[in-house]
Order: sequence, then structure tokens, then C-alpha cells
Amino acid sequence: MTHWWQAPTRPLDRDAERAALARQDALTKPRGALGRLEALAVRLAAMQGRERPRLEALRIVVFAGDHGVVAEGVSAYPQAVTGEMLRNFVRGGAAISVLARTLDAQLEVIDLGTAVPLEPLAGVLHLGLGAGTANFLAGPALDPEQLAAALDAGRAAVARALADGAQVFIGGEMGIGNTTAASALACALLQRPASDLVGPGTGLDAQGVAHKAAVIERALARHRSAETPLERLRCLGGFEIAALTGAYLACAQAGLPALVDGFICSVAALCARHLNPGCGDWLLYAHRGAEPGHGLVLAALEAEPLLELGLRLGEGSGAALAVPLLRLACALHGGMATFAEAAVSDRAP
Amino acid sequence: MTHWWQAPTRPLDRDAERAALARQDALTKPRGALGRLEALAVRLAAMQGRERPRLEALRIVVFAGDHGVVAEGVSAYPQAVTGEMLRNFVRGGAAISVLARTLDAQLEVIDLGTAVPLEPLAGVLHLGLGAGTANFLAGPALDPEQLAAALDAGRAAVARALADGAQVFIGGEMGIGNTTAASALACALLQRPASDLVGPGTGLDAQGVAHKAAVIERALARHRSAETPLERLRCLGGFEIAALTGAYLACAQAGLPALVDGFICSVAALCARHLNPGCGDWLLYAHRGAEPGHGLVLAALEAEPLLELGLRLGEGSGAALAVPLLRLACALHGGMATFAEAAVSDRAP
Repeated sequence: MTHWWQAPTRPLDRDAERAALARQDALTKPRGALGRLEALAVRLAAMQGRERPRLEALRIVVFAGDHGVVAEGVSAYPQAVTGEMLRNFVRGGAAISVLARTLDAQLEVIDLGTAVPLEPLAGVLHLGLGAGTANFLAGPALDPEQLAAALDAGRAAVARALADGAQVFIGGEMGIGNTTAASALACALLQRPASDLVGPGTGLDAQGVAHKAAVIERALARHRSAETPLERLRCLGGFEIAALTGAYLACAQAGLPALVDGFICSVAALCARHLNPGCGDWLLYAHRGAEPGHGLVLAALEAEPLLELGLRLGEGSGAALAVPLLRLACALHGGMATFAEAAVSDRAP
Repeated sequence: MTHWWQAPTRPLDRDAERAALARQDALTKPRGALGRLEALAVRLAAMQGRERPRLEALRIVVFAGDHGVVAEGVSAYPQAVTGEMLRNFVRGGAAISVLARTLDAQLEVIDLGTAVPLEPLAGVLHLGLGAGTANFLAGPALDPEQLAAALDAGRAAVARALADGAQVFIGGEMGIGNTTAASALACALLQRPASDLVGPGTGLDAQGVAHKAAVIERALARHRSAETPLERLRCLGGFEIAALTGAYLACAQAGLPALVDGFICSVAALCARHLNPGCGDWLLYAHRGAEPGHGLVLAALEAEPLLELGLRLGEGSGAALAVPLLRLACALHGGMATFAEAAVSDRAP
């Protein structure tokens, strides 16, 4: 059976990349002096198919969902927070709301399914995939229909972003318990024990972390027979993790650069890479977060994130914080004078 | 003799700091989840004396000057570039020009003294301290009058920034050969050999770096008797390095936060700290650059810069690139809802 996400991803534009590289080398600065911003501008040129890329229109989509594994006591916060934060997102009080306003981004909030029933919230797209996922100690977290719907929700969010003219896509997530699900999925994808990846999430103490690792080890044993990336995502993932995975795959197929946020999003990116390796061309990594497993996942992705600020919030906030660097890289690349234009002496050849 | 820069620096506002800390802990996120941005917002609150700091008005001042030591062949670029880049700064083609425009900053360009005579340039403040510094292998780089004038130039630039309502000050520098002067000064201040600090600057090869280290060792031997920070600055520094030193000291006395750029600026900050240790409260560090000595200087300053992007351009560009993080830290701190305001459940106490 062929799935939509297995279709080829869009190739990068190597002509635009060469033109951008030549332009970088002609700008009035020592070659390489702008460090990683130079390669970033050239990469964006290859993605956008033009010598001088631009990143004004920014779309941020926050995917929220609850996790059955919270019944095992793996989070410091009550599950009601997922719904409460959905309200906070659309009322403008959450970190990602403030960042979206300040960065002039379009913010879309998607409720894939919360454990505590919610009245319809203005500004939230309620998809109703279920009252959170099932507890993956008892069985697969998602049933096959939920998995397909969550992947499709990511794809549909990207289609809306494209229709609105987005030039860069940020996926964010909210879901009490989702570092547990993401850690379990990453362990399965990377074939590593829980102790290599598990961290405090939003605020567990050492005893809480040890308990979380034990829960994940039991889950990995329970789902040992899940051997494909898709089955691992279904058995151990979450609604929002699957939606992010679908979103990254759809971005890569459409040729929309995606800026990956923290640990949860990086695990979704890893899952997307396992499902369709070509999508890696379209993923940019924003930051190295505080969650210990993030470093291992980034290494597996061969990712070198732009920022390292000890962030561990999620919501897409770390990716949003990196947006000014992308915009400034484009501004420098497009706006600086060349040695010839400015009549500045270059170094001897 | 008492100098202006020895007068006390302004104390931080500990009441505002406490109020900001309490606010951070009440915002709708797990405590600490915004990582270093939380401490940054609290630090800015203590600097600005208000619970919710703001960083809109940004002043960037680029100090340019030439260096006599360039006669020893320590740079990959001809000395004419210093003047050519002054033109490029005010015509808008340089990296710092693009960054100032994009960040809505006021940009001031100060020519302290170039080796190649320049016609007066519209938009450049020409101070005429000399045709570059003297070659410090032959004698002190600056005479006492030049040193006083350069320190005063920094102070005057800060006074103009304050008069224009600046909320944060960025000093930048331009001067062919100035990594050599800055390295020599840092070696003297830190009592380290040249080999610990010297790097390629804007683009020397390995042989060039070895030659540069040898030149610095000769300069350190020549000026062994310079034992105060002020004499070390005079013998081994440069016009722009002394002006930056004066600017940082004046910022700290006036209570204006200064965002320190790369290697050259960090050496000026180190010199300022040696001249008046209290100024450290008012210095924020933007980035860890590619120049090898930068890490040692930052360690001596106990600085943890925000960015690490392999930058080695100067001009204030790395500091400018960090400005959005400061602004976003303020926006998050001031704009997020508290748990009570948003009716979001906090974790169990």
C-alpha cells in the first residue's frame, strides 16, 4: 500500500544555490565572516529557488493532544492544562501567542483531542480524534484511523499555510505527557534504552524521571513487535506528534521550509525522516533544548541548531525565537553591497 | 590623579529585579522553561529599574581607526579598506548598515583616524586623532593625548545615545589590523602568551597566524614595563579599542545596558573591567565568535554569550544579531499571561 507521505519530496534548486553562493562571496566582508548565517542564506536560496530568499510570511501551527500514558503519573502537571493552554493560546497569553504577535506571524491552533472535554473555542480548530490517546502500556496509543487522521491534520495545516502564502512553517505542540511519548518513540526509532533519552520534561524530580524511564521501558517491551516507523508512531506516539510528522512530510513535498522546534518536534522530524528520508532537505533546526534526549535525536538528524538557550517549553517557541536570525540572514544576503558596488578593496587573490 | 572613568558605576535596581523574578515565576509556563531568556528579562529589569523592561530604542556606534602595526604584515587586507568601509557604512552597503536598518536602530559612524587620508564623508563623525596609531613594535601605539581623546570619544558617543533616548548601546569596530592590537592587549591584561590567543582575524593562513603571534610576542616584550590597564591600553591598543573601552565605562556610569560584540569589543570590555570593575553589571555578551582568543577573554569576563554562530566580522554585527533575542525576552516577560490571569492550573506545590 502506498501512502501520500511516501511520494517524492521537492528537490532543492541547485542553480539558485550556486547563484547565492557566488553572491555571498562578493559581499563586502571577509569570506565566511558571517559564519553560519552565510550557509543559512544559501540554503534558503536553494529552497526558495531564488538568489535572494525572503522570509516575511511566517505560519505557526500549534498541535495539541492528550496522552493516555499520563495515567501512569509521568507528568508534573494535571491533564486539564492541555485544554486550559488551548484557551491561553487563542486569548494571547501564552509564550507562542506573544511570539507570534511580535514576529507578525499567523498563528493557528489545532485541538486534536483532549482528555478533559472542551467547549468549542473561538480560534481553535477542534478535530476530535479522541479523548487523548490510549495508555500505551495497555495497547497502541493510536488506532489506525486516528493515526491516518493525525498525519492528514498535519498535511492539511501545511496546505492552509501555503494557501495563505507562508514562506516558512513552524509546528508547535502542547500535550501534558508528551515528552514521555516522544521519548518512547525516539527510543524505538533509534533503538536506544530509555535511560539514554529520558529527562525531566516540564519539571519532574529525579524520582519522577526514574519512574518515567521505567514506564517507557515497559512500553518498549510491550510494543517490541512494532518494527516499522509507522507502527512505532502509532503504538508510542501521540496525536500532535503524528500531526507534526505529517506536517514536515507535507512541507518537504510542497517545498515549504520547516523550522523544527525542540525535543518533541525533533522526534517528529526523526519519524518523518524514517518515513521519507528526502524530507530532511526541507527541515531547519532552531535550537538545542534542555531535555537530555534532544542532543541524541539531533545527532541522529545530523542537525546543528542555531540556538542553545536552555529552552524546554515547546509550543513552537524555540523555533519562533530563531526566526529573526533567518530573517536577518536573508536581509544581509540580499541587502549588503558587493565589493564592486561599494568600491571596497578585496584581499589579494 | 582621578579620571572620569573611575567614578562609581550605577547600581542595579534590586527591587525591580525581585519584582521581575516574581513575575517570571507566575507566567503560564513551567518555571525555567524559557531558559536563559528568563534571566535576561530579569537582568534587564534590574538595569532599567522596572518590572517589565523594554528595548525598542537601539543605538549602534561603529568606531573606526587604523593600526601602525599593519606595517608588519599582520592583515590579509590593505589598510585602505578602513576608509572604504567607512563609506560603505554610511552608504548602507555594509553588514552593520543592513542590520541597523532591519532592526530600526540609529547608526552612528565615527572615524577616529585612518592611515589613508579621507575626504569628509557625510554621516561620518571625523575626529582626526592621527593617521592611525603608531606601530607598537617601535613605541606606544597611542600618545597620552590620543588615549584621553579616544576614551572621551566613547563617552561622548554614549552621551549622544542617551540624549536620543537609547535603551541599549552597541559598540562596533572597524580597523584593518585590530585583531592584532586586541590580541596583544588581551595577552597583557590576562598575562598569557600570544600563542594562547592569536587567530586568523579576517583571513590569515597558518603561516600568517604564526607571524602575527611572533609580532605580538615582540610587542609584549617591548612594552613589558606597561603594568597598569591604562598603560597597556595606550601601548598596545588602538583608537577604536580605547573608544569602546570609554563607551562601556560611560554606559555603566549612566546605567545604559551595553551589548558587547565579538573579540575586539570583548577585549575592550575586559579593559573596562580592569579600569573600573563595577562596569561589569552593565555589560551583556552577544556571541562567541570564531576568533580563538575570544573564548579565553569571555572566560575571564565570566561571560556566557547568547549566540554561537562562527561570526568573525566585527562592526557590531554579532551584537546586532542578538538584539531580537533581547527584545523577544522583554516581549515574553511583559506580554505573557500569569497562571491566575489565564486560569491555567499550576503544578502541585
